[in-house]
Amino acid sequence: MNRDDAVALDQADPLAPLRELFDLPEGTIYLDGNSLGALPRATAGRVAEVVTQEWGRGLIESWNTASWITLPQRVGDKIARIVGAGEDEVVVADSTSLNVYKALASALSIASADAPERRVVISERSNFPTDLYIASSLCRERNYELVLVDSPDEIESLLDRAAVLMLTEVNYRTGYLHDMTAVTARAHEHGVLAVWDLCHSAGAVPVDLRGADADFAVGCGYKFLNGGPGAPAFLWVNPRHVDRFEQPLSGWMGHAAPFEMSPGYRPAEGVSRYLSGTPAVIGTSALECGVDTLLAAETYGGLRALRVKSLALTRLFADLVASRLPGFVIESPLEDARRGSQLSLSLGSGEGAYAIVQALIERGVVGDFRAGSPDILRFGVTPLYTRYVDIWDAVDHLVAVMDNDEWRAERFWTRGAVT
Amino acid sequence: MNRDDAVALDQADPLAPLRELFDLPEGTIYLDGNSLGALPRATAGRVAEVVTQEWGRGLIESWNTASWITLPQRVGDKIARIVGAGEDEVVVADSTSLNVYKALASALSIASADAPERRVVISERSNFPTDLYIASSLCRERNYELVLVDSPDEIESLLDRAAVLMLTEVNYRTGYLHDMTAVTARAHEHGVLAVWDLCHSAGAVPVDLRGADADFAVGCGYKFLNGGPGAPAFLWVNPRHVDRFEQPLSGWMGHAAPFEMSPGYRPAEGVSRYLSGTPAVIGTSALECGVDTLLAAETYGGLRALRVKSLALTRLFADLVASRLPGFVIESPLEDARRGSQLSLSLGSGEGAYAIVQALIERGVVGDFRAGSPDILRFGVTPLYTRYVDIWDAVDHLVAVMDNDEWRAERFWTRGAVT
Repeated sequence: MNRDDAVALDQADPLAPLRELFDLPEGTIYLDGNSLGALPRATAGRVAEVVTQEWGRGLIESWNTASWITLPQRVGDKIARIVGAGEDEVVVADSTSLNVYKALASALSIASADAPERRVVISERSNFPTDLYIASSLCRERNYELVLVDSPDEIESLLDRAAVLMLTEVNYRTGYLHDMTAVTARAHEHGVLAVWDLCHSAGAVPVDLRGADADFAVGCGYKFLNGGPGAPAFLWVNPRHVDRFEQPLSGWMGHAAPFEMSPGYRPAEGVSRYLSGTPAVIGTSALECGVDTLLAAETYGGLRALRVKSLALTRLFADLVASRLPGFVIESPLEDARRGSQLSLSLGSGEGAYAIVQALIERGVVGDFRAGSPDILRFGVTPLYTRYVDIWDAVDHLVAVMDNDEWRAERFWTRGAVT
Repeated sequence: MNRDDAVALDQADPLAPLRELFDLPEGTIYLDGNSLGALPRATAGRVAEVVTQEWGRGLIESWNTASWITLPQRVGDKIARIVGAGEDEVVVADSTSLNVYKALASALSIASADAPERRVVISERSNFPTDLYIASSLCRERNYELVLVDSPDEIESLLDRAAVLMLTEVNYRTGYLHDMTAVTARAHEHGVLAVWDLCHSAGAVPVDLRGADADFAVGCGYKFLNGGPGAPAFLWVNPRHVDRFEQPLSGWMGHAAPFEMSPGYRPAEGVSRYLSGTPAVIGTSALECGVDTLLAAETYGGLRALRVKSLALTRLFADLVASRLPGFVIESPLEDARRGSQLSLSLGSGEGAYAIVQALIERGVVGDFRAGSPDILRFGVTPLYTRYVDIWDAVDHLVAVMDNDEWRAERFWTRGAVT
């Protein structure tokens, strides 16, 4: 395998035209779409239209005339197609953190009613911290115990006393991909509800919420959905649960008739009750453009085709690291079925992951760093726009950074606010 | 008083140049800035820059290089100047509904610790519904009783058993303006915490949170702060309370060191712990442009000067209604000190408020309708861009709508989704 082979793979790639949907900076190899997806070409124009026309000209009337009021449901329906949910089952709202709160709160309400003796919520210590912070807050409030496992194998032994199993389908550090269907089935066999965080899987791997019979799911708008920095998140509730409880963040947009302006809360039918405040119109409109880039892939085979390419990209990356960078440990699963759309490396017990990421960025290869044990160098691949040659070049740069000791330069050791 | 007098008032108005900061549609008299503020001229360009440059070019690095990570605090500090708060005391985050949840939850935590026997939260039945829905949810969760009063006079008798008094400073229906300083002082005398919703007062009337010694405050970004549809909201906590409790929506952005990625939550010092998820960068950037339009008024005398003009506008409106539209009841206080930046009318027990608002909109006069007893026609004035002649013309149109029976046309009786 050499660079020409990578170029040839791109030339033969049926998904290659999708890259044209993005406005990517020249000279950058962007391998951080798992943290912030790239800018779709359609977004700037659409956002300008929302600002200058819908807001500027239409003003308050745009809630009706530009259908702002149904944006959360409209974009939710589009996301539903990406995560295997049905129509009217997904809403866009708030942040992942807040949606975790709503979903877990409802799951706990259900568990309290159906199995009040079960007082444990299971999650993974390596889950994305915000999920754990929110779960910890809710568990304290409702007198549940949050038990964190260090490996998926430990989950089984806890299921008999658990109320809820809350997992992130693809681990943000390693890219480990749970088998959602199998894990959910095991949970259900033991009477445990399954709450899934799709932040690193929605738009990255085929997700089939209905097929897996999951109970609740939330996910991020600004990673593989390309919705822009701080884009609103989404939430799905299995229809069998959706009308059972009010969620606690019961703002007026989740009311059955918000403009009745009645002092008493009456939850909307269905997933709309998971809305809280007034929808973020500009951010949700930008998110819609991002979701549309994924829906554009439907004519190319959709998420299944993207998944094939994603796995080929991360496998190529892993192979090149194994052959050219023996000092690095591959922290992502080598088994395709267990690997999300990223490749994570570490230096084992060695120091310098942060500096290496910085040295790569200076060369135009943008991955990111995640602190931990061990520290991680993360490289996300987004098959909508990542090319085989990008992987080749990224590894080539990484070889140069290491061979030339570039990463030892002092300027790479100063941490930014966001690291 | 005739139309020429109104024109003369505009010509003599020292604040008149501020209207140039807005991009207002030709031929519209916009009297709904209390629902959605108009588009500042600076916003479209700034939003385009955030989308195409900061996101498009800078990608993930903009969290550091474009200081996205401190946006909630930076814009919060600007809002602080508008509401009489100090530096580092305000953050921009989420929606009003969610910030009410955080503020009230913290207030209840404090009350539970300091006065556990007090189990009542007082609010007004006419408070904006979302505040009541959220309060009702929290009270149920924490075993408090939410008592709603029908008039401010009833508050006093409840204070001795109350934990928290939660009020909206300016009533969304009538524009009734509470005396925040006096009401807070009475609450404190009785050992009750005061939580204020500033949705209809921030940017509309001078607010002095520190002077009033309020306990918590939240407010809206898209009304008088001109932040755009669904703009993020803000939250203030009195420094004496801010480090006392974690708020329950404890997402990673409220962590002392979010990028440590530790599984355990450690709240940030100060009001930053009231952040939850990743900040909405595009929406918060738009909000900053809106807040800047108010800060631009500082050289013209700031909110005190805007208030003088606002009162003159609503007084003119009330006088014209009294003399020209005897069929209407003025539902807003006639006393200047008790009137926010709006004038609300009703037909008493008569029908047709909705249709009249629609007929006015067809004539280019945009107010809004709020259902209730009685139904309300609301007209907000925004002294940054509302002119005296707008008030004259609006009343003139209203006279025409009534005199010609225009409002009886069938097309005005069909309700939109948002009414």
